[in-house]
Amino acid sequence: MSPAQTPKNLQRGWIIPIGGGDRKVRSSPILQRLVELSGGADARMVIIPTASQLETAGQRTADVFKELGVTNIEILDIETRADCENPEILEKLDAATGVFMTGGNQLRLATTIGGTSAAKSLRAGNARGVHIAGTSAGAAFVCEHMIAIGKSGGTPKRGMASLAPGLGLTNRVIVDQHFRERDRLGRLMTALAYNPFATGIGVDEDTAAFIGPDDVIEVFGSGGLTIVDPSEIEFSSMADTNMGAPVGLIGVKLHILLAGDRYDLNTRKAFPIGSE
Amino acid sequence: MSPAQTPKNLQRGWIIPIGGGDRKVRSSPILQRLVELSGGADARMVIIPTASQLETAGQRTADVFKELGVTNIEILDIETRADCENPEILEKLDAATGVFMTGGNQLRLATTIGGTSAAKSLRAGNARGVHIAGTSAGAAFVCEHMIAIGKSGGTPKRGMASLAPGLGLTNRVIVDQHFRERDRLGRLMTALAYNPFATGIGVDEDTAAFIGPDDVIEVFGSGGLTIVDPSEIEFSSMADTNMGAPVGLIGVKLHILLAGDRYDLNTRKAFPIGSE
Repeated sequence: MSPAQTPKNLQRGWIIPIGGGDRKVRSSPILQRLVELSGGADARMVIIPTASQLETAGQRTADVFKELGVTNIEILDIETRADCENPEILEKLDAATGVFMTGGNQLRLATTIGGTSAAKSLRAGNARGVHIAGTSAGAAFVCEHMIAIGKSGGTPKRGMASLAPGLGLTNRVIVDQHFRERDRLGRLMTALAYNPFATGIGVDEDTAAFIGPDDVIEVFGSGGLTIVDPSEIEFSSMADTNMGAPVGLIGVKLHILLAGDRYDLNTRKAFPIGSE
Repeated sequence: MSPAQTPKNLQRGWIIPIGGGDRKVRSSPILQRLVELSGGADARMVIIPTASQLETAGQRTADVFKELGVTNIEILDIETRADCENPEILEKLDAATGVFMTGGNQLRLATTIGGTSAAKSLRAGNARGVHIAGTSAGAAFVCEHMIAIGKSGGTPKRGMASLAPGLGLTNRVIVDQHFRERDRLGRLMTALAYNPFATGIGVDEDTAAFIGPDDVIEVFGSGGLTIVDPSEIEFSSMADTNMGAPVGLIGVKLHILLAGDRYDLNTRKAFPIGSE
């Protein structure tokens, strides 16, 4: 479940967690940018509505893609693990240049798609250049270490975040979504404090982190992207704390980035808009 | 945090989760086999007692290694994240042919070592051939997806297992330890049900899963190794279940293996002792 290997002479596709807030996202530059990356009017867009239980979830995004000039749009009817082995569905998935996963429940994505041929197709596709976006639950699912369940609040507490394996397109970041709106700094810090190797990305609604093939993030949308860098944590009381009790953490670094700002996951450096 | 890449012409070292039960392990063939793999009398054994808060934890294992004829034994004094950047400690770690991590609390290992130079050394070492064993907490820590916290019982329940990123020597398995002794089938099934891509390994006390460079497991010791194969799960109610409620799972495959039996993680096939 680590990222699939990128074939020689190819570039990994962009990985695009979006913070949710569907109404706002529909008219924002986020989906437009996704379509441009995926080939503009020639894009072959695939929508995976599995996280949601609303029949309309995929159609709403398809309508936006249509408005943006895309004609080749498929909403995949993936409800069960057997669907993930259906040759017709896999063919459409293999042909995509861009993928969008709707919001809903990230455990529905992981339990339905995890370990199936559809997961392999998505992982291999991204490794050879297919761009994969997800909003809300879809955003959480792109990660190797996915926040599956959690509680609100600013202070990290032991057990506040439950992790599960996600799709595993990247293991460099742990994503949390509806970030400012649902007060999730505590649970993102908790998730990182278990093992401070990854970088935390808290994505506000109508905001997206476009993670490039070079692992540099570009921010799009109207909200903020909160970067939580635990690499310089000197002390953490996580191991010696009871369930539900606050966790002491010394040395967490935080950045709040807005549209146009960038963050390099390799060097852990942030760049305000317009800087080199 | 996916496994480090094995350099050309080299073989990954063995990964050896042990199920705990220190008193029994001391006189069992498990540590003997670890020493043989690591070079016998020429082995350079390193002990990491970080998971434990008992001062004697490392010394007891060192005594066993000594009895087995090893003269080059280092107990590394890793208590803080700063220790994981100490050049003297890193030098000893880089020189090891075999590593043993004691039991205690796996979150102490993850919070102290995760993301540090010591973690990089262990991961790169294993990739180029260093054998890494861990008992109890040390066994949990070898995985990419580590069971950090959990409850006892046979029925899987949502939230029964909390995962955290581990050392990440392998992402093919999720290990649980003291398996039969602490009634942990439920929590291992829960951990796998979040995303059924990995294979579950429940390791009884005084029992070890020797995971070879070819990802074939050999069982050693007096207890059982429970293999939980979720790859054929057709249905799971995990995504639609409330916290603490039982999870319905259809299609889990189980194997109970004993000393001498083998399991191939690539083909998901089990081989009784003596078979080809």
